[in-house]
Amino acid sequence: MTELLSNTIKMIKALDKKAMAEALARQDLLTKPQGSLGRLEELSVQLAGIQGKPIPQLRHKAVITMAGDHGVVAEGVGNWPQEVTAQMVDNFLRGGAGINVIARQVGARIIVVDVGVASKMEAHPQILSKKVASGTQNIALGPAMTREQAVKAIETGVEIVNNEVAKGLDIVGTGDMGIGNTTPSSAICAVMTGRPAAEVTGRGTGITDEQLAHKIEVVNRALAVNHPEPKKPLEVLAKVGGFEIGGLAGVMLAAAAHRIPVVIDGFISGAAALIATALSPRMKNFLIAAHLSAEVGHKVLLKHLGLKPLLELDMRLGEGTGAALGIFLSETATRVLAEMSTFAEAGVSERSELDS
Amino acid sequence: MTELLSNTIKMIKALDKKAMAEALARQDLLTKPQGSLGRLEELSVQLAGIQGKPIPQLRHKAVITMAGDHGVVAEGVGNWPQEVTAQMVDNFLRGGAGINVIARQVGARIIVVDVGVASKMEAHPQILSKKVASGTQNIALGPAMTREQAVKAIETGVEIVNNEVAKGLDIVGTGDMGIGNTTPSSAICAVMTGRPAAEVTGRGTGITDEQLAHKIEVVNRALAVNHPEPKKPLEVLAKVGGFEIGGLAGVMLAAAAHRIPVVIDGFISGAAALIATALSPRMKNFLIAAHLSAEVGHKVLLKHLGLKPLLELDMRLGEGTGAALGIFLSETATRVLAEMSTFAEAGVSERSELDS
Repeated sequence: MTELLSNTIKMIKALDKKAMAEALARQDLLTKPQGSLGRLEELSVQLAGIQGKPIPQLRHKAVITMAGDHGVVAEGVGNWPQEVTAQMVDNFLRGGAGINVIARQVGARIIVVDVGVASKMEAHPQILSKKVASGTQNIALGPAMTREQAVKAIETGVEIVNNEVAKGLDIVGTGDMGIGNTTPSSAICAVMTGRPAAEVTGRGTGITDEQLAHKIEVVNRALAVNHPEPKKPLEVLAKVGGFEIGGLAGVMLAAAAHRIPVVIDGFISGAAALIATALSPRMKNFLIAAHLSAEVGHKVLLKHLGLKPLLELDMRLGEGTGAALGIFLSETATRVLAEMSTFAEAGVSERSELDS
Repeated sequence: MTELLSNTIKMIKALDKKAMAEALARQDLLTKPQGSLGRLEELSVQLAGIQGKPIPQLRHKAVITMAGDHGVVAEGVGNWPQEVTAQMVDNFLRGGAGINVIARQVGARIIVVDVGVASKMEAHPQILSKKVASGTQNIALGPAMTREQAVKAIETGVEIVNNEVAKGLDIVGTGDMGIGNTTPSSAICAVMTGRPAAEVTGRGTGITDEQLAHKIEVVNRALAVNHPEPKKPLEVLAKVGGFEIGGLAGVMLAAAAHRIPVVIDGFISGAAALIATALSPRMKNFLIAAHLSAEVGHKVLLKHLGLKPLLELDMRLGEGTGAALGIFLSETATRVLAEMSTFAEAGVSERSELDS
C-alpha cells in the first residue's frame, strides 16, 4: 500500500458522538411528534456525526461518476457493445444522460472520470482523464489488473476527492459507467459476502434466462481462475474488479477521511463499498445507501454492509442516478433539522404527560 | 349532492391512452436500458395520461394543507391538547413547520386552509378561512357533522383548487393538520375497506398499548353508534369523518376534474382518498401515493385503493410532508422524460439483438 492510500485510511475516524447527541436532542424539540419524520431524523443524526456539527449543512453537492471498461465482455455477458461506455461518457459531457437530469434537479455538480475506458476519449474540459489502462483484462482468464493498477485506481478516487474538497464539498454521490461491470461486481460480491455466484449475479441491463446461466458460469470461472481471498481487498479488486470500482472505493475512503458523507448508488457502487469497508471498517459509518437496485445481488450486498436503502424504485441504471436522489433526501434531513421551529420558538404546546 | 359537486365529478374523465403510449415509446428511446429507471418511468407515463401530454410538465406545484378539529378528542384518544391544531396552523403561516421546510426545498407553494379549526384563528394574509364549523361533533356519540356540512367541506376543497388553477397548478399534494384526526380516519378506513377497527387503528402521534386498546374501542363505538354504509361516501364522511378529510376529498376530485395529478400524503389523506374514489371510480388514476406511513392502517388503505407508495421512510407527521417528497419524485419522472437524450440524438449504439 502506498503512503497516500495508507494515510487516507488512517485519517478515517469515528463519528462524532457529541454532535449526534445534540442533533438528536434538537430533533426532539422540533414542532412534530418525536420520531415522526422517521428515517429523515435518523439520517440527520448520522450526518451530524459525520460532519461533527450538531446542525449539519449540505451546500456543495457532487456526484462523481467513474467510467471503465471490462475485458470480460469478450465472454458475451451482456447485450451492449463495449463502445457504449465511451459514447455514454460523451452523453454525460453533453448533459443528456439520466444522471445529468437528476443531478441538475438536486443541484449537484457532476465530475466525470475516465479511469479505464477502452477507447481513447477526446479531450473535453469537463472530463477528468485518469485512465489507469484501456479496460481491464478478462477476469474469466486471469486477473483484471495488476496490484499496482488496483492501488492506482483507488488513489485516483482519493486524489479527485482531495481536489474537489478544495472547491467545496459537503456530500458526494458515487456513480459508474462501464459496459459489463455487473459481472466483476457480482464476483466481488460473491467473494466478500461468501454467497454463491448464482445468488449475487443478476440480469444487468436485461438478459435472458439462458444468458444469465452463462453469466453465472463466467463469474464462477473468474473466481476459480483467480482465487481471490476476501481478507485481501486490494487483491480482490486486482483479480476480479474494475478500474471504476477501484476509483469509487477511493472516493469513499477519501470522503470519509474528510468527514464527508458518501451516498452510494446501486450494485457497482456497492461492490466498491465492499472493497472500501474491507480496507477501513470505520468507512461504513460514512455511507448512506440511496436505493435498493433491481439488480439481484444488491440486497445481499447491502445486508452484508448493514445498510438500509432510502429508496426502492426498481431502478438499475447506475451513473449515480440513485445516489443523486439520496443526496436530495439527505438535504431534506439536514434542512428539517436546521429550519424547523422548536416548540418554544413557535409557541406550540407539547404533548401531555402520559399517565403512567 | 349540489351542482358544483356533481359537475366536478362529471368532469373527471379517463386517462389519455394516446399520450401514455407516446410517453412509453419515448422512454424506450432514451439513453438507458429499457425500464432501468423503474417506477420513475411508470410515473412519467401516468403523468402523461393525466395531463394528456406525451411529455408532461410540472412547473406550478402546490401543497394544500387543511386543518380541522375533532370532537372525539373528548374521549382521550391521544396525548396532544386540541389547541395544538390552531398553534400548528400559526406555525405553518410563519414557515416553521416540517411542511414549510420540505415544500421550500421542492419549490411548492403551500395553501393553508382552516376548514374546521375549533378556536377562532386570527386573520392572516396566508390563511384561507373556510371554517365549516368549529370542529366536528364527537363521533363516539353521534355523527361528526350534518350531510350539508359534509358537502360544504368537500366543496371547499373544490373551490380552492378551482381558484388555484387560475394561478397555475400542474401538481397538487394533500396535507392535513388536526389533533385527533387519526381516529375518524381509522373509522372511515374500517367502513370503506371492511376491515376490523383493530387492524386499521394505530398509534397516531404515539400512544401506549393501553391507550391504543381504548382508541380501538372508541372507533368501534363510533361505527356502532353511526352505522355508516360504505356505499354512501357522503354519509360516511358526515357520520365518522372530519372537515379537513372532506376538504381534501374535494381537492382530489377537483384536481382530477382539471387533469391535475394529486400526490396523497399519509393516513388522513388516504381516508380522504377513500371518500373521493367512492364518489368517482375514475379518481384513482389521478392519485399518486407518496409514501407508506408508519400509521398501521395506511398499508391496508393503500392496498384497497390499489396504490403503491413511492417512499417508505417511517414518516407519520402528516401536514403534506410525504406528499411534498412525492411531488419532487414526480418532477424527477417528468424531467427524465423531457430532458434525457435519445440514442439517436446522443449517437449512442443500441443494444445488440438477442439471439433468439
